[in-house]
Amino acid sequence: MRPRLLLLGVVVGAQLLAGPSPGGTLRDDVRAWRMGHEKAILEELDALLRLPNLATHPEIEANADRLQAMLEARGLAVRRLSAGPGTPPALYGELRAEGAARTVVYYAHYDGQPVTPAQWRSDPFVPVMRDGDREVDWRAAPAPLDGDWRLFARSASDDKASIVAILSALDALKASGRPPSVHVKVFLDGEEEQGSPHLRSILEAHKDLLKADLWLFGDGPVHPTRRPQLFFGVRGITGVEITVYGPARALHSGHYGNWAPNPAVLAAELLTSLRDSDGRILIPQFDALVRPPTKAEARALAALPDVETELRQSLALGRTEGSQRLADSLMRPALNVRGMAAGGVGEAATNAIPTEARLSLDFRLVPDQTPADVRERVEDFLRSRGWTLTHDAPDLAARKAAPRLARLEWDEGGYPAQRTDLELPAARAVIAAAERILGARPVILPMLGGSLPMSHFAQVFAVPVVGVPIANHDNNQHAADENLRLQNLWDGIELYAALLADLTW
Amino acid sequence: MRPRLLLLGVVVGAQLLAGPSPGGTLRDDVRAWRMGHEKAILEELDALLRLPNLATHPEIEANADRLQAMLEARGLAVRRLSAGPGTPPALYGELRAEGAARTVVYYAHYDGQPVTPAQWRSDPFVPVMRDGDREVDWRAAPAPLDGDWRLFARSASDDKASIVAILSALDALKASGRPPSVHVKVFLDGEEEQGSPHLRSILEAHKDLLKADLWLFGDGPVHPTRRPQLFFGVRGITGVEITVYGPARALHSGHYGNWAPNPAVLAAELLTSLRDSDGRILIPQFDALVRPPTKAEARALAALPDVETELRQSLALGRTEGSQRLADSLMRPALNVRGMAAGGVGEAATNAIPTEARLSLDFRLVPDQTPADVRERVEDFLRSRGWTLTHDAPDLAARKAAPRLARLEWDEGGYPAQRTDLELPAARAVIAAAERILGARPVILPMLGGSLPMSHFAQVFAVPVVGVPIANHDNNQHAADENLRLQNLWDGIELYAALLADLTW
Repeated sequence: MRPRLLLLGVVVGAQLLAGPSPGGTLRDDVRAWRMGHEKAILEELDALLRLPNLATHPEIEANADRLQAMLEARGLAVRRLSAGPGTPPALYGELRAEGAARTVVYYAHYDGQPVTPAQWRSDPFVPVMRDGDREVDWRAAPAPLDGDWRLFARSASDDKASIVAILSALDALKASGRPPSVHVKVFLDGEEEQGSPHLRSILEAHKDLLKADLWLFGDGPVHPTRRPQLFFGVRGITGVEITVYGPARALHSGHYGNWAPNPAVLAAELLTSLRDSDGRILIPQFDALVRPPTKAEARALAALPDVETELRQSLALGRTEGSQRLADSLMRPALNVRGMAAGGVGEAATNAIPTEARLSLDFRLVPDQTPADVRERVEDFLRSRGWTLTHDAPDLAARKAAPRLARLEWDEGGYPAQRTDLELPAARAVIAAAERILGARPVILPMLGGSLPMSHFAQVFAVPVVGVPIANHDNNQHAADENLRLQNLWDGIELYAALLADLTW
Repeated sequence: MRPRLLLLGVVVGAQLLAGPSPGGTLRDDVRAWRMGHEKAILEELDALLRLPNLATHPEIEANADRLQAMLEARGLAVRRLSAGPGTPPALYGELRAEGAARTVVYYAHYDGQPVTPAQWRSDPFVPVMRDGDREVDWRAAPAPLDGDWRLFARSASDDKASIVAILSALDALKASGRPPSVHVKVFLDGEEEQGSPHLRSILEAHKDLLKADLWLFGDGPVHPTRRPQLFFGVRGITGVEITVYGPARALHSGHYGNWAPNPAVLAAELLTSLRDSDGRILIPQFDALVRPPTKAEARALAALPDVETELRQSLALGRTEGSQRLADSLMRPALNVRGMAAGGVGEAATNAIPTEARLSLDFRLVPDQTPADVRERVEDFLRSRGWTLTHDAPDLAARKAAPRLARLEWDEGGYPAQRTDLELPAARAVIAAAERILGARPVILPMLGGSLPMSHFAQVFAVPVVGVPIANHDNNQHAADENLRLQNLWDGIELYAALLADLTW
């Protein structure tokens, strides 16, 4: 395959050089092209959004087919990188740039979160444009379209918009005769929303193919102020389901209350031994592997716009966990309670001692913690506090044998955190290219609070990784009525054009 | 009405004196009569069990009608004591005994817990007799019936069996020509399983009518060893639903975890501040009103048969709360977690910070605590720990204003505990009468762990109250497949006959 890829790369490069150049700035050129092609861009996105994209369903394959065609239409040489039958392929595309010294891989995912159609205002896979609450027939509307309109569909912003943005940026560059300044590789993950269970093995298996100087991540939201945002790290994640046990059958709370152990109390004690209501994790040495912020990161954190005032108001928060600003808090590891359950509350409450209590936790990790490290520290700590731990469902003999028994079921597919030093030449180059096309400094976020599998790339390839999100922050990501604000797509095309054609170090 | 009642009493007394007397002991006579009337007794119970008896449903009235006829058939003068339209009446019946000095009121309830028919092996209101798992046609079986057979139906043991037992005891006494040794009053509560919301007002309104020297309670189970049991107290009860608040909408645990308060952690902290896993309630002075056991109570507690060994085994308990024996534990107040809930666990877990967390608690009180006292101490304690309390659903402004906000919804219908001194003459008389007919000392339980509204009687009438249960302990009370072991009904008729005809002090 390799000779054919190179040949295509040369041909495309020649085509780009042969295209017309309007002579304006990069931003002027890209913007003019976009304003002339808004409906064509949306038609391509609309068609992509009509393909249901749950990674665990066979329908995901149609997405891969469509994307392969879209990449090939831009002259990229495409390969499907599969971890085996029944798993969605990662799509790989390559476009070589004449004279370029650096290679950049652009990452996005094409699968989406599950949907519960009953919760949506309209079919999640029939895109609908809305101006506020009003449905809009964008195909019949005069161009340019209103940038505040929003397109509603699963993956409208997460991440199919990013995929269309990078391909539209290539189109705009080609139309204006501007060649990429770097060799471009595209990597489209097909099971990110499932925790990318096969990503690592795909990367390892194609280490040479994916060799690059920088990975760019087209996932996540822009800043809540709607200012463009670059992020240089993400928190890692691992999760665990914990079950603690009471009597083998539910007992009358009067006849046995004070004698038969109440598992809800045991669960509450277990939880409060792990963390407090200020977000502090109480496991000794839990943060032993935590890397402190660099001076550049501290400066970037201090320069972040105020979001806390508005958030406290809209979320009706009477307090926050600890006294730090939001982004500072996210530089620390977190223990989140996803859920807890025992017995019944309200109408479902009965005067009974429940048989078990459950906690569902997720841990957000920061460099240089790993899921294995977290798992070991949590289990060691619980054992030191008198808990007997099991990973399987205990039988009655095991329950009888242990004064405090907890079953821990760790999530599969977790991953460590990742943070790229802001002072690295590649990091500085990304910031500079973004600043040139924006005409202003973007928001520089040292670490996103959420989790993305960026660490795999850093670990396998030992290269910088930078997040270049374009979606609106209020996009209902992962939930019903996911949407994309049009202006975010238009701005994203400009940002990506800069990162393709104006990136040098 | 009063003259007519007296007249009926005289007539019935005369009839009893005119009946045949076989000349044996009281136990012999009652047992012989029962063995000759087992199917008639069961037919009467069967017919009563076919009447659905949820107190909040109009069908409860048919129970009252049937019971009135059953009481009148034994010559009792009956009155329906109502708290108003739409509430089930308490049934009152009276039978005067010539020459008796003391008056005893016999209490039971005729309403039942709600049923979930899908959880039952057969219709809860079509009684089925079973020998182990095998269904038995008891009407076709040769008498006497196997005492280990069980009759399955809602209220089979709780308390319709007790009602049939006391009426059968009257029948047996009449047949053997033995007059009651006390004036007998019967009081049948129609909404005990709803917490007896109108009981107090009915008692207050009929204070003269219900005047007596002793109340006997035909509710609850015999000892787990199947030995007859008398109990001299019950714990009181009150309950509360607590809601604590997180962000106004569920938040991504990565993007906000460590900053937006997690309500599940707040709920766990609230709970562990109230009690520990040894059952200790941590509210200062919570036990200020707790009355210590008397010497007689301590002796009775020490004499209780071992149930703990078998319970630890069958319940697969790796520990108990504290190091006390079961009955000693029940002498203390208890805080039970009926349920807790926040977010989702297992398949329902999402990486989100929930908007609220809920705790459902019941408190078991001991003399001389009251629900009002508990409520005040709990609320004072939570306020002292920095909680802002509300009893209504808070709006967003209230949530924003309070760093720690908890909504407390106290259950209606709680009541205090009650304990009768074992050394009182009436208490000694009950023990002696039971011991004479049993030929052995019954189990003497100073206080039942469960709750019954016995305190109302002690408070309104200032008389001793003693529990005289007959149901098997393994009767699935309040749950699916409630059942009555036949031998418990037969033994109960003998015990009640002794308490009607051999009680003197």
